[in-house]
Amino acid sequence: MNKTEKLKWWGWGLEGQEYRLPDPENFWSFLESTLGPLKPCPRVGSLSDIPVAPSRLTQADVATLTELFGDSGVTFDQADRLVHAVGKSYPDLVRIRQGQLLAIPDGVVFPEQEEQILAVLEAAAKRNWAVIPFGGGTSVVGGVEPSSQDRPVLTLNLQRMNRVLDIDSTSNTARIQSGILGPELETVLNAMGFTLGHFPQSFEFSTLGGWIATRSAGQNSTKYGKIEDMVVSLRMVTPGGVLESPVVPAEAVGPSMLQCLVGSEGTLGVITQAVVRLHPVPQHRDFSAYLFPDFATGLSAVRNLLQSEICPAVLRLSDPDETAVAVLLSQSPHPSFKERLGRWYVRARGLDLGRGAMLVLVFEGTRNLVSAARREAKHFLRSAIPLGSHPARKWMKSRFRHPYLRDDLLDRSVMVDTVETAAPWERLPNLYDGVRKSLSAAILETAPGALVLGHLSHAYRDGASLYFTYLARQQTGLELEQWQAAKKAATEAILKYDGALSHHHGIGSMHKAWMRPYLGSEGLKLLEHLKEKLDPNNILNPGKLVGG
Amino acid sequence: MNKTEKLKWWGWGLEGQEYRLPDPENFWSFLESTLGPLKPCPRVGSLSDIPVAPSRLTQADVATLTELFGDSGVTFDQADRLVHAVGKSYPDLVRIRQGQLLAIPDGVVFPEQEEQILAVLEAAAKRNWAVIPFGGGTSVVGGVEPSSQDRPVLTLNLQRMNRVLDIDSTSNTARIQSGILGPELETVLNAMGFTLGHFPQSFEFSTLGGWIATRSAGQNSTKYGKIEDMVVSLRMVTPGGVLESPVVPAEAVGPSMLQCLVGSEGTLGVITQAVVRLHPVPQHRDFSAYLFPDFATGLSAVRNLLQSEICPAVLRLSDPDETAVAVLLSQSPHPSFKERLGRWYVRARGLDLGRGAMLVLVFEGTRNLVSAARREAKHFLRSAIPLGSHPARKWMKSRFRHPYLRDDLLDRSVMVDTVETAAPWERLPNLYDGVRKSLSAAILETAPGALVLGHLSHAYRDGASLYFTYLARQQTGLELEQWQAAKKAATEAILKYDGALSHHHGIGSMHKAWMRPYLGSEGLKLLEHLKEKLDPNNILNPGKLVGG
Repeated sequence: MNKTEKLKWWGWGLEGQEYRLPDPENFWSFLESTLGPLKPCPRVGSLSDIPVAPSRLTQADVATLTELFGDSGVTFDQADRLVHAVGKSYPDLVRIRQGQLLAIPDGVVFPEQEEQILAVLEAAAKRNWAVIPFGGGTSVVGGVEPSSQDRPVLTLNLQRMNRVLDIDSTSNTARIQSGILGPELETVLNAMGFTLGHFPQSFEFSTLGGWIATRSAGQNSTKYGKIEDMVVSLRMVTPGGVLESPVVPAEAVGPSMLQCLVGSEGTLGVITQAVVRLHPVPQHRDFSAYLFPDFATGLSAVRNLLQSEICPAVLRLSDPDETAVAVLLSQSPHPSFKERLGRWYVRARGLDLGRGAMLVLVFEGTRNLVSAARREAKHFLRSAIPLGSHPARKWMKSRFRHPYLRDDLLDRSVMVDTVETAAPWERLPNLYDGVRKSLSAAILETAPGALVLGHLSHAYRDGASLYFTYLARQQTGLELEQWQAAKKAATEAILKYDGALSHHHGIGSMHKAWMRPYLGSEGLKLLEHLKEKLDPNNILNPGKLVGG
Repeated sequence: MNKTEKLKWWGWGLEGQEYRLPDPENFWSFLESTLGPLKPCPRVGSLSDIPVAPSRLTQADVATLTELFGDSGVTFDQADRLVHAVGKSYPDLVRIRQGQLLAIPDGVVFPEQEEQILAVLEAAAKRNWAVIPFGGGTSVVGGVEPSSQDRPVLTLNLQRMNRVLDIDSTSNTARIQSGILGPELETVLNAMGFTLGHFPQSFEFSTLGGWIATRSAGQNSTKYGKIEDMVVSLRMVTPGGVLESPVVPAEAVGPSMLQCLVGSEGTLGVITQAVVRLHPVPQHRDFSAYLFPDFATGLSAVRNLLQSEICPAVLRLSDPDETAVAVLLSQSPHPSFKERLGRWYVRARGLDLGRGAMLVLVFEGTRNLVSAARREAKHFLRSAIPLGSHPARKWMKSRFRHPYLRDDLLDRSVMVDTVETAAPWERLPNLYDGVRKSLSAAILETAPGALVLGHLSHAYRDGASLYFTYLARQQTGLELEQWQAAKKAATEAILKYDGALSHHHGIGSMHKAWMRPYLGSEGLKLLEHLKEKLDPNNILNPGKLVGG
């Protein structure tokens, strides 16, 4: 692993990968006017500035691992261990940038075969190691971080198990190894005329196995579903042996063995392969955007649209604050004639482009079915001003770019994080208000200003996911405490208003404390039983999801 | 329970409910020409002709139960116990008609509240009773029959918990008690403009809780999904307490608690409520039927149709033998001019109406989307002769009637049963051939003729379900052994060709022996763990699905 690669893992801006603001001066002055004056935030200069505890693996351990994985399949190097120590959450980045001492794995192995995984789990049971399965390392909930336990930790990086093993172009399914990255996967499938249709914001850096382990949702989920809907079958190496769920489109064979394993976050076993459902690469794509006078009107419109069984691939409704920031992030200081004309048109219709609620719609499929759905959808969008296709195309083009802006924000001492949930439509307005207010109130305890942006995405006939991005000035010296207070306020509001504890980020260590109030004692026990039975020695990703 | 009600439970023809053959002479002579000469089969005349072991419940037990459920909520009557003793499978009916001694429950209780269920499970743990949750009693896999155990058995009939508790017409969901029957459920929902869209062939007699406990599929599943896709959340009373899964449209909170419970066939707890997704009553319905020159051409056409994301509500492709019998069952001895014209048209196109493969399609939804889908579908149906809407309308009208014919067949000493499975499209042709051949061969060991009818229904983008109906002359005196041999041959062929052990009938006691080869030892253990932990005293429906 070279230095560039290592940096990539950390969420630090790579050369040529910085987020390019179209009008930086305007953006930063807007932010200061809202959050208060910003200041540069120092950070450590390189990996070697971060203190690292020595590996606790013995010489015998090292010999065993080297025998199992070969010289090129194992590393005890400080930098390699460091880049496997944390995920990509805000507290992860803060701790790295401050050069805090982290709990890091004592070694990293790169299996290429299931037999190696079985062998390493066997050795772990004998020698009391913890083993953390690691896909792309993009967890934002503390999913890949060693928990503070008094035993050696081995991280199992699965990225060498990254082959598409078989494409069944009759059944439109593929058997794929779990360590494949999003772009690798889509490249192979696209060449055969297929797509998985799964595009989480971490797409560039996350893996199929990671998506399945965390019940991930992609940005096109409104049409293609969450990853748990896409998986036909999976193979998992557990301490007791290899499990493979039957490869059938549907079955009535007791509780779903497959769904007992999907979402297990590395705590029950190591996902090595999955059979997934494919879609033909869409023949046609239709982009459109609309501006609603307010969020509530937009919510009601998209609900009616979905409940009439119209199914866009992407449906994303931003609240007024997010709409305003989206406009700010897209406006160049020298707008084209067309852009100026567009703004004039919106104003002439009596709306403020920065205060309405913007909807982005993308339909995908055959030309005829897309046209029919679009025509049918119009009926539900009468209360909105059509903005043409440009904003939707622009969103599609830049959808994986926005997280890169986080580095610039951190450089200026801005706390920035996201929370997400889901609820039935009936509860969404209260959930939206409740989370926004709680977040703002918690933030304003320690910061002079707060920005809370919300949007609805991942929509279903019976409800939808809500996503919030919040920004505030960091409280110097208490960055983590400040964040923890905001996180707590948001999560408690989510539970108070009966939202999902997570819709697609997962549980990891970050949401674990809320598992009991969310699932109930009996519900939590159910998941704990699975853990106790499948991993009786608590080898796998201890301290995450459930159990100690 | 009056006598009519009791008979209804048994699958014996009710007054006015007999199956009416349009041309009986033609049908029976066809059957004799295929299966060999048929003869009348004697059967017991009434419930009282069936021997019943005395209830093993003690006076103290009876007192406890009467206190818990009141006089009207408990019965130890012989006839009441008998009608709860078996389901609706072919061996169930044979044993009843022969007046065989059955393992029957020692008492039947009718809970109206969860507290009663909790109390009865507590008493069961103390007094070593087995408890069998009972919905509509339509299991065809031995799901509600007491297993031969040396302890009292109590059957928990849930049909008094049959209320729609709440309809959320914003989220298009409803909270419903589990004991509601299909027609009751649809009546309430329809009045509010909704439908669940779940129409299994047992619809008239089966319950919401039974559907969820067995992972049932309805005839409109191609659009609406299986019951496990329709359930948002469920409540279950287990020996350890009440479980309720979160009411959210989707979540990323470990393995799905909901899907760990759906399909548990009464072995983990008693389902008392569910929140389900609703659809608007379809604005428009479009019926059509087509005749393909053969089954393989039909298979390929419907696969391409589905994979192009066209989604009919009903898609049912009969193989040539089933098509021939369908024609026989629909032809009256005096066909109308229109019918004769239709037959002439098919012959003129060079096909035999009784030897092609008939496809029934029903599209449902808004007028515009249905029209668009129909137009798009035409492209994939070019290899078939359109038969107009009549056969599809006729199928829709009579779809719950066909099982009633079973009584007439049994009266004439005909063995008649069905098996079902599912597989990815790629494996369907071999699975179809394999099951058909194995079934025929096994049947012809003991009978002079065999009729094996097949169809595809419940179609998915990645595969479909296959359903076989088989008929043969009964082997007098060895009716159950003869059936067992056919069942074994069919199931072994299903496993040999990697089909689902069941797509929608479930496991019960009938498929249990094949759970290990189907799921693998580690997979089976996973389900056994759930059973051990949730029902440590093995109170609930012992001997079904997994465990002893």
